[in-house]
Amino acid sequence: MNIEQIISDMTVEEKIRLLAGESFWATEAVERLGVPSVVVTDGPHGVRLTDMETQHTKPATAFPNEAAMAATWNEELIRDAGRVMAEECQYFGVGVLLGPGLNGKRSPLGGRNFEYFSEDPYLTGKMGTAFVQGVQSGGVGTSIKHFVANEQEKNRMVVSSEVDERTLREIYMLPFEMVVKEAEPWTVMCSYNKVNGVQMGNNDAYLNGVLKREWGFEGLVMSDWGAVIDKLASVQYGLDLEMPGPGHRNGEVFEAYKNGLVTDDQLNDHVRRILNVVKRVIEQKREVPSVDLGQHHTIARSVAEESLVLLKNESQLLPLPKQVKVAVLGKFAEAPRFQGGGSSHMNPAQLDIPLEAISKFAEVQYRAGYEDESVSEALLQEAVEAAKGQDAVILFVGTTDRIESEGYDRMDLSLPESHLRLIEAVSAVNPNVIVVNHSGSAVDFERFEPKARAILHAWLPGQAGGTAIANVLFGDSNPSGRLSETFPVALEHNPSYVSFPGDIRQVAYSEGIFVGYRHYDTRKLPVKYEFGYGLSYTKFEYSNLVLSQASLTNGDVLQVKVDVTNTGTRVGKEVVQVYVQDVKSSVPKALRELKGFCKVELAAGETKTVLIELGERAFAHYAEHLGRFAVESGEFVIGVGASSRNIRLTGKVNFASQEEVREPLTLLHDLKDWLEDDRYADRIKPIFAKMNVESSSPFFPIMIGMPMRTAAAFLPFFGVSPEVVKELHEAIGLAESRNG
Amino acid sequence: MNIEQIISDMTVEEKIRLLAGESFWATEAVERLGVPSVVVTDGPHGVRLTDMETQHTKPATAFPNEAAMAATWNEELIRDAGRVMAEECQYFGVGVLLGPGLNGKRSPLGGRNFEYFSEDPYLTGKMGTAFVQGVQSGGVGTSIKHFVANEQEKNRMVVSSEVDERTLREIYMLPFEMVVKEAEPWTVMCSYNKVNGVQMGNNDAYLNGVLKREWGFEGLVMSDWGAVIDKLASVQYGLDLEMPGPGHRNGEVFEAYKNGLVTDDQLNDHVRRILNVVKRVIEQKREVPSVDLGQHHTIARSVAEESLVLLKNESQLLPLPKQVKVAVLGKFAEAPRFQGGGSSHMNPAQLDIPLEAISKFAEVQYRAGYEDESVSEALLQEAVEAAKGQDAVILFVGTTDRIESEGYDRMDLSLPESHLRLIEAVSAVNPNVIVVNHSGSAVDFERFEPKARAILHAWLPGQAGGTAIANVLFGDSNPSGRLSETFPVALEHNPSYVSFPGDIRQVAYSEGIFVGYRHYDTRKLPVKYEFGYGLSYTKFEYSNLVLSQASLTNGDVLQVKVDVTNTGTRVGKEVVQVYVQDVKSSVPKALRELKGFCKVELAAGETKTVLIELGERAFAHYAEHLGRFAVESGEFVIGVGASSRNIRLTGKVNFASQEEVREPLTLLHDLKDWLEDDRYADRIKPIFAKMNVESSSPFFPIMIGMPMRTAAAFLPFFGVSPEVVKELHEAIGLAESRNG
Repeated sequence: MNIEQIISDMTVEEKIRLLAGESFWATEAVERLGVPSVVVTDGPHGVRLTDMETQHTKPATAFPNEAAMAATWNEELIRDAGRVMAEECQYFGVGVLLGPGLNGKRSPLGGRNFEYFSEDPYLTGKMGTAFVQGVQSGGVGTSIKHFVANEQEKNRMVVSSEVDERTLREIYMLPFEMVVKEAEPWTVMCSYNKVNGVQMGNNDAYLNGVLKREWGFEGLVMSDWGAVIDKLASVQYGLDLEMPGPGHRNGEVFEAYKNGLVTDDQLNDHVRRILNVVKRVIEQKREVPSVDLGQHHTIARSVAEESLVLLKNESQLLPLPKQVKVAVLGKFAEAPRFQGGGSSHMNPAQLDIPLEAISKFAEVQYRAGYEDESVSEALLQEAVEAAKGQDAVILFVGTTDRIESEGYDRMDLSLPESHLRLIEAVSAVNPNVIVVNHSGSAVDFERFEPKARAILHAWLPGQAGGTAIANVLFGDSNPSGRLSETFPVALEHNPSYVSFPGDIRQVAYSEGIFVGYRHYDTRKLPVKYEFGYGLSYTKFEYSNLVLSQASLTNGDVLQVKVDVTNTGTRVGKEVVQVYVQDVKSSVPKALRELKGFCKVELAAGETKTVLIELGERAFAHYAEHLGRFAVESGEFVIGVGASSRNIRLTGKVNFASQEEVREPLTLLHDLKDWLEDDRYADRIKPIFAKMNVESSSPFFPIMIGMPMRTAAAFLPFFGVSPEVVKELHEAIGLAESRNG
Repeated sequence: MNIEQIISDMTVEEKIRLLAGESFWATEAVERLGVPSVVVTDGPHGVRLTDMETQHTKPATAFPNEAAMAATWNEELIRDAGRVMAEECQYFGVGVLLGPGLNGKRSPLGGRNFEYFSEDPYLTGKMGTAFVQGVQSGGVGTSIKHFVANEQEKNRMVVSSEVDERTLREIYMLPFEMVVKEAEPWTVMCSYNKVNGVQMGNNDAYLNGVLKREWGFEGLVMSDWGAVIDKLASVQYGLDLEMPGPGHRNGEVFEAYKNGLVTDDQLNDHVRRILNVVKRVIEQKREVPSVDLGQHHTIARSVAEESLVLLKNESQLLPLPKQVKVAVLGKFAEAPRFQGGGSSHMNPAQLDIPLEAISKFAEVQYRAGYEDESVSEALLQEAVEAAKGQDAVILFVGTTDRIESEGYDRMDLSLPESHLRLIEAVSAVNPNVIVVNHSGSAVDFERFEPKARAILHAWLPGQAGGTAIANVLFGDSNPSGRLSETFPVALEHNPSYVSFPGDIRQVAYSEGIFVGYRHYDTRKLPVKYEFGYGLSYTKFEYSNLVLSQASLTNGDVLQVKVDVTNTGTRVGKEVVQVYVQDVKSSVPKALRELKGFCKVELAAGETKTVLIELGERAFAHYAEHLGRFAVESGEFVIGVGASSRNIRLTGKVNFASQEEVREPLTLLHDLKDWLEDDRYADRIKPIFAKMNVESSSPFFPIMIGMPMRTAAAFLPFFGVSPEVVKELHEAIGLAESRNG
């Protein structure tokens, strides 16, 4: 396919027609020039392909939700999952899979949080990269979405997310930047919302400015389904493909073209980007007559197993010995809660039932305990009776489809009343309560945590979740999931509590960069389970932290080496996490930030040396006045540990930046700033000493708190001699006149 | 003095000259027309008059700092204090006392917090009203300051406070509004800073728009000393008097007048407001040949006594029996910490020394324990030795002048290391440690609270503080102070922690209305000592809460009656606090807000019925779309108690507003909003029912989450018949065309 030739052969009408879908799920073809239509379809937890005749979704492998994927902290596994999805796409003839979602988690209420990886942009970026690399290695495109600052469902099509530039760059854009640069996704999907007043469907600054020019993105930008509000502006400001079709942009854009409001260059750029994707689809298309769904199921199970987070395990109740007598309670054991609602909702190729999987290990009494969210006293009583006298009780609870879905946000973090009552009633008759919780994001633990001796957070674990859960409960698999988001003590502690979801016009991201553990840890708030947390059936010790350099400069890569030892008696996997803390900065910073991690498997007694590399970006912040990331000179603490609050070893490095990243002082900065700033103090202090200002005077603080301009003008009133005033004026570059 | 005659007799030059001070502390005279100069001088803790020849401050009665005054919750007492200050002003020939400060407390770090009443705008407004009424009843003017949104010292002359309108009105402007409307202060002082980008010295919207027009303020607006940056704009935009002088505005404004940029009307309005104050000063001037400083000292002592807050009193260690053997430790016992630094710094007419006052009650061993902030091991050891074997230890600690002053903000909440070490060392040898803490705002209790059996928060208690403290410690006075601000567990829990004090350009008030207890209580954060808290030597019980009406409407006044009984064995005063909670609101609201209070004295065993009235404003919020305060219909909980977290009795009222205060829904609001809104649901629900949309479909949430405009357009795709779509369009006022 010779793209430039095709572009020169296309008529303007053909070009414009190509800029919107041919149908709900396909791009336009240009048959006379041999350009085929490309099928795109929903992800990101597997392939959701709708049979357009029956409107039914075709069976495909359903993976755990994205938050669960991130909780594996296992990039290789996610790459495998991506490869499986690509295989199934090829089988179905799908050219682009619409995912992964890379949005952030301002609030645990976000209705679509389950479809996003993590509250931490670095972890999201790494997992997103693995996902995209996996899918695209199979010759199928991805669409990283939803670009950008769409962290809520409420009013998502009209609200303006009001976010400062630094927060956008460090928190909400970073995952997109990482994936664009590291994995080159074929497409990016713009979000429905506005950012700082400008609709993302025609946001010149972010689509053209940041994505295409700054980051060098060469793929195509498509709209979310229905996200284009102003068709003409969308063509002018960087949106290549409007979805769905057919033909939404045609008439209006053609008129504009004729009036000179749309240029040939603009059209050709959009067409070129679209044809590039079409070309890739054609060239990488493989004939896949059938897929090995059994093998795919195994991979889905591995992802599920490594995503499960053991939150609590009092008296080592887990793993359960085999052949134990257990009551299995809760309807989710029989009718598994394995995925969320909305566009990621799939028809699973196969579905493991937790109850059946558990029955393979144990003697089981099953009772539903609840039918839906409302309490059924009869079902509750039955469950309580069944729980009596059992060795243990495995109790399935979680959010229902009605609680957690695309399209709306959660009202609160509560589990359904029927689930809570079940835990309460059962724990009164059997102390060995094991709660398996299904939810895509945090829940409120207050009412049930004390009643449970063990809690397994099982996310929405996809079609193989049932087996994965049983394997972990009975020790065939050692849990190695670590929380990809903070589980707070109370929703009220969340930084967005009073600003989420804003009103019909705007939502203020007023917490800035202090999202997730950046908030909880910096603000010294207690949390229920912190970011990066998760138990294992074995124990890990950290030793011998070695930093390759004590001092760094721009371009250097710091090697962080640490020995991790499995001091327990069974094989297990540990997630070694590296956090960087900036000791002193000219801008507000989080207490520490995740900058590297590594999941490592260790046999009992085994020690491995883990190597994690930190490049310049690990020490940088987005300096708004420079318009880019930059590192400020100074000391940084490297913390290595098992969660954001379980730092086992620390080391220090000094970063000697080759540039001055702090803003310069101005005549508006106060005298105190000038006296305390190492860039100026040498010049100012000796002159200040000559002033003989009595520091014990009650007016001393007022004077040194004045802007330099004002202070310099007021000095004669404090009895400072004209010569000294003149000297100061010269030192700070003030003109002779004092009224500057 | 015939003001209109004088105005018509004045030349333009004379008028313009009048618009700035004659000197640092006086207004211009117009001698040929009999207009004298008026002397203004610093408050607000007493009269700080500088002898211009010697530059020394004249001795005058030094009252407790404003935060302490507010902690009395006793308006009558503050009125008395105001009267005393006015008497001393008359004696000195001062026409206007520059105070009280009415700014808020975003952060406990605010350097000037001690000079402001409270984190609660209602308490501030009430105390400010009492202060102004007291001073002005003595024929002396006041200047409420600093208008507005100046809650930090850092960059105060250049920073822009970025505050949304509702927060400004409900939190930062409310005290000014209350005092302007209830007490008619003669003058208002504008602050140094900008608000939302506009310098307060020439802020047309707030000086002319809000203060003069909306609130009907008829006094004069003066600048803080040096707060005028743009002289011409300040004349055009509502600032009447520039301070200090001489003559700052003359030349520039005269040129502008000649060019028609300043009108006669503008000049005359400024001149009229200034002359009105001059006239009042003349007419209310009294000959006061001498003042009874002893009597004034007694009033200062009463204020100090009622401001002291007993925070902790384990095992009723306090009051101490008389004749007990005590060690008195800490240099502040001998060199009292009784006031803060900066423009409120006074020369006290008399000064009670705590050590001497305590010596009247007990057998005392005194040791300094520390000299300054740094630890002196020798002094420490001496103090420890002295503490051994004593019945109790009274330990004076607090912030030093270096820590807490106008001009800069505090770095943290720590007490000096030398003070903390003293408490730690002494508590190891004597369990009966009583800490007397002097600070104008919150301190960090973490390190010393567990070591102290009793803690008396003594603020900066003015010249009679020493006696007041001794009287409370030994039970001659029963403590009745209640915290006028929250003492948090950690500075990091404060809502402004990451946004205070912003940068050189701006400070974002990003927590909005959630300041002080509005934050801590709404966010369910633990606090060390909550707003309104304070112990007594007796106990109070609340009973028989009676609300005069179950249902209210606009203009009604709800009478809240409650019986309070002193169930202890000694006379005491209780502060009955009334909080209002809005059960459901269309805008985010704090959990509860203070709307009334009453301090009541009760003999042992005595019961009194307390009446507190709540007008319409107690239920209102500032509705931005209406541009005014308004009440939304619904249920409100009236909580009566002894602190924001110690609500003893609650009742409910229904407010049936005569107007619709919620914003109307638009076509941008989603279908869910329309279905759930009682204003529209009746119209929409029956049509929705005809649509037969399956609520269990995974796409149901997506559909009802769509803006009505979009949903209405998409309905045909969900199989909704054209007739039903048309019916919906008509019901919501959409035109026939679906592409709105």
